[in-house]
Amino acid sequence: MPNPTAAMLVIGDEILSGRTRDTNTNYLATQLTQAGIRLAEVRVVPDEAPAIIAALNALRAGYDTVFTSGGIGPTHDDITADAVAAAFGVEIGPHPEAMARLAAHYARAGMEFNQARQRMARIPAGASLIDNPVSTAPGFRIGNVHVMAGVPNIFQAMLASVLPGLTGGAPLLSQSLAVNRGEGEIATPFAALAAEFPDLSMGSYPFIQNGAHGTNLVIRGTDAGRLDAAMTRLAALFGDAG
Amino acid sequence: MPNPTAAMLVIGDEILSGRTRDTNTNYLATQLTQAGIRLAEVRVVPDEAPAIIAALNALRAGYDTVFTSGGIGPTHDDITADAVAAAFGVEIGPHPEAMARLAAHYARAGMEFNQARQRMARIPAGASLIDNPVSTAPGFRIGNVHVMAGVPNIFQAMLASVLPGLTGGAPLLSQSLAVNRGEGEIATPFAALAAEFPDLSMGSYPFIQNGAHGTNLVIRGTDAGRLDAAMTRLAALFGDAG
Repeated sequence: MPNPTAAMLVIGDEILSGRTRDTNTNYLATQLTQAGIRLAEVRVVPDEAPAIIAALNALRAGYDTVFTSGGIGPTHDDITADAVAAAFGVEIGPHPEAMARLAAHYARAGMEFNQARQRMARIPAGASLIDNPVSTAPGFRIGNVHVMAGVPNIFQAMLASVLPGLTGGAPLLSQSLAVNRGEGEIATPFAALAAEFPDLSMGSYPFIQNGAHGTNLVIRGTDAGRLDAAMTRLAALFGDAG
Repeated sequence: MPNPTAAMLVIGDEILSGRTRDTNTNYLATQLTQAGIRLAEVRVVPDEAPAIIAALNALRAGYDTVFTSGGIGPTHDDITADAVAAAFGVEIGPHPEAMARLAAHYARAGMEFNQARQRMARIPAGASLIDNPVSTAPGFRIGNVHVMAGVPNIFQAMLASVLPGLTGGAPLLSQSLAVNRGEGEIATPFAALAAEFPDLSMGSYPFIQNGAHGTNLVIRGTDAGRLDAAMTRLAALFGDAG
């Protein structure tokens, strides 16, 4: 059975301007790989409703699961929840449970639960909440879309609560061999080996170390036995140079 | 006049598996912002021709300029040039100038210019070469698409040779103010200020420092005078908490 697929939608002008580096995608990729879910596409769009809606509708139709990060805070540029509601064609309004959690959170902190903070309880109709153990304001799941925070430690906490509920596949395994030769030298035998193992994916990644060219050869797949067999052949081909 | 727009297409299984962190997007974003070109969308797709072709055709139709990174090396998983040719509906074959440069490069290095390395001279018909001062194998430009290497120092060198030839706009300026208050506290007056300056873009980015909540308020635009005016108002609103 093929592994389930996922897509990531990063929302935020600050990523596209270069001001902020997106670290959530790499974290998500690593976690999904371990869970046997294949991250198959990533898109980054600005804080603009038409761009968010178009990308979300393309991704949720194309992949089993979608994750979004960013744009669910209390300020005027946080428009993700409204854009998601529009993409699904549903209403959006204050969610009683989200309101209750946030009201309690700000009461404990002795801070005003003002109109801006109440914005964070606006949730599309039919969505279920995703817990936020860091700062309370929840994410939410609607259909196959998981709407999560952009702040990395909150994104990671939300992912931890979501991931066990997703249908994964056999973990995507990988093994690698570093060889002291450039890509151009190993390309032909490496391609022949890849053709022998059509059920595995083989990639090569050049590096330079102490001024010398080297290549990391990476084999990925879900069957540990096949991976071992391919690695044995790889070592026989290139191991002397490694 | 609105600023020209650009999109980035990152090609590579190694990004989607989490093995490699994409650093080219952030570098490109920063360089384009300085040149007054607005990076408006990013997509990451695997080393699969249908995915590359679909994304490339969507992006080159939607934005003034497109950059790609990855998949132009000598190994079997390097299929970007062929996918770009297919997207444009043109032939692909050995490019005489690229062949000459690579032949000379490998002759100088005393290395065989073998069939795998000759793959790197395959360029779509009608494309012009982008210099690679690091390792010779060129990128290329076809239409509004710039096909560049995934290795960061080569990507950066190629961008340096491409960027001066692009039509930029007024540089996208930004100023920021860090305030010692959470987003929820500044959201309402900050939104009112944003409404007063519809020609500027204002964003807020929460942080936690020494256990206390703070927010970076960022104003972006192309008119330095308007930016100064907005920053003066911002400092009057929140400067005491900064």
